[in-house]
Amino acid sequence: MASSLDLEFLLDGIQKGDRAVLGRAITLVESERADDRILAQRLLEAVNLERVPSLRIGISGVPGAGKSTLIDNLGGRWTGEGHRVAVLAIDPSSRKTQGSILGDKTRMNRLAHDPRAFVRPSPSGGTLGGVAAKTREAMMVLEAAGFDRIVVETVGVGQGETAVADLVDTLVVMLVAGAGDELQGIKRGILEMADILVVNKADGDNRERAQGARAQLEMAMRLARGSGPWPRVLAISALEDEGVETLWTTIENHAVYLRENQLFLAQRRRQRIQWMWRLVEAALLRNLEENPKLLKLIENLEREVEAGEKDPTHAAQTLLHAHRDNP
Amino acid sequence: MASSLDLEFLLDGIQKGDRAVLGRAITLVESERADDRILAQRLLEAVNLERVPSLRIGISGVPGAGKSTLIDNLGGRWTGEGHRVAVLAIDPSSRKTQGSILGDKTRMNRLAHDPRAFVRPSPSGGTLGGVAAKTREAMMVLEAAGFDRIVVETVGVGQGETAVADLVDTLVVMLVAGAGDELQGIKRGILEMADILVVNKADGDNRERAQGARAQLEMAMRLARGSGPWPRVLAISALEDEGVETLWTTIENHAVYLRENQLFLAQRRRQRIQWMWRLVEAALLRNLEENPKLLKLIENLEREVEAGEKDPTHAAQTLLHAHRDNP
Repeated sequence: MASSLDLEFLLDGIQKGDRAVLGRAITLVESERADDRILAQRLLEAVNLERVPSLRIGISGVPGAGKSTLIDNLGGRWTGEGHRVAVLAIDPSSRKTQGSILGDKTRMNRLAHDPRAFVRPSPSGGTLGGVAAKTREAMMVLEAAGFDRIVVETVGVGQGETAVADLVDTLVVMLVAGAGDELQGIKRGILEMADILVVNKADGDNRERAQGARAQLEMAMRLARGSGPWPRVLAISALEDEGVETLWTTIENHAVYLRENQLFLAQRRRQRIQWMWRLVEAALLRNLEENPKLLKLIENLEREVEAGEKDPTHAAQTLLHAHRDNP
Repeated sequence: MASSLDLEFLLDGIQKGDRAVLGRAITLVESERADDRILAQRLLEAVNLERVPSLRIGISGVPGAGKSTLIDNLGGRWTGEGHRVAVLAIDPSSRKTQGSILGDKTRMNRLAHDPRAFVRPSPSGGTLGGVAAKTREAMMVLEAAGFDRIVVETVGVGQGETAVADLVDTLVVMLVAGAGDELQGIKRGILEMADILVVNKADGDNRERAQGARAQLEMAMRLARGSGPWPRVLAISALEDEGVETLWTTIENHAVYLRENQLFLAQRRRQRIQWMWRLVEAALLRNLEENPKLLKLIENLEREVEAGEKDPTHAAQTLLHAHRDNP
């Protein structure tokens, strides 16, 4: 791909808001090909200087929580206020194709036809849980293209939510009140990271249950995080458009809160450092796990350790030595 | 040290329950010296075959939560029932000396003079949060010496609690009801990992507050973890010995629950694999962080990334390439 593109062409198209060029630029920064990486690096260094003030919002929730409907609704409000909205929908199920999440794109009916919006599925790359290793780069390109509301949509699975918290200014976690006592969608560490918790589907027969869950959740959050102004807990119905206006205002207020307390840029600085180390750690482990000379050894060691025939420390040392001797 | 010890001597002393030999064996497995590591490895392989059925209990809580008083009380109950109790008190503040936690040892008055108990401070080694990288090895030596209740005491800070959850069968997390709404001692991920939550200091003026906190916490746990039988939430006063009997029974019941549901050995198998990868990951990152040829580069990259002069991906790649070229 690199041969047909050059830096000037990309920068020019991005700054003019050419959607085709923007799409190709994002594909470029997502690419793992060595020649693409070189051009991508030059592009990222160039756009690094061009950044406009933006707000990055993570929307995380289990499949079926209603993320797309909500993002379509919120996004329409933003573009209605003159903002330009980009949605990066991360699909943990596809590493290379951009297939399976396209259904989501069509579910964002309003944004799909809004000239001020840009919706883009993003393959997860598989290394950082539900969040693409290249999502940060895609955000930078979008910001350079003048998008000032960047929404990162993730399916909250395992490590994914931790990673998305390092990418965004405001993390919204969506839950659904289930049939039993519990809330669907609470994952490890969620109470510590969410800025806004949303109990969705507070409509019809489910309204009362959702309101009850909201109150319980608010108490649990106060218990876990103390009595500060954040996180907020809201019950909404994205479907019936109830409470979405309040959520929208709450997201904007969170950015105001961060800025007024000198936390906005400090958080972004901390996130950049954390992201660097996250990438380094993932790459080191991947180098070892994908070392073809070690595949058989890893399989054997895991079996022996599982069976209790070899202790984990000895196995770890064996593996580290083999990796050192067979880089 | 290795020269004055040999494998037969150590194994013999451990099996006879010679406390001096036991202490030296633990020091050996904790040692980072290359010659010690060789003997330690042989020792661990030998004791691996000798293991007796044991129950490993983690007791985690912030400083001042009352861990030592509780462990002294619980330990006395176990030895009273004919068990042999070993306490590994992990001190995150000291990497090499065994100094600062010795105060805790004297606070375990009952166990310190109990011939069926063995209390041992354990330097944290600094790599796995509040848990010593060598705690697993020390547990194995203690089990070989016939201790069948192994208590690992940790100060719940950051990653420490995640790591301790991979070491023990039953994780008890101690909290204290504070002056405000919140509970002191809730750390990241705690709701997902604790098997038993204990609100301590339910005595005097604090009794009502602690009982209220217990009820709130129970609801929060039900919300986060569903309506299964675990975790349990208890309010106790270790000082006035109220509720400790119930806690003791609950710990024993947790082991029964795990065994009856075929979870006990499955959990240990999973923990061994996780521990292996945890050690591999920590070592890979430490090799890079402590590479003397990279110290200056790391410092520069962190500064540039923090200032926004270099993007995190580029910095991560620079660091990984430099590490590869300067192993």
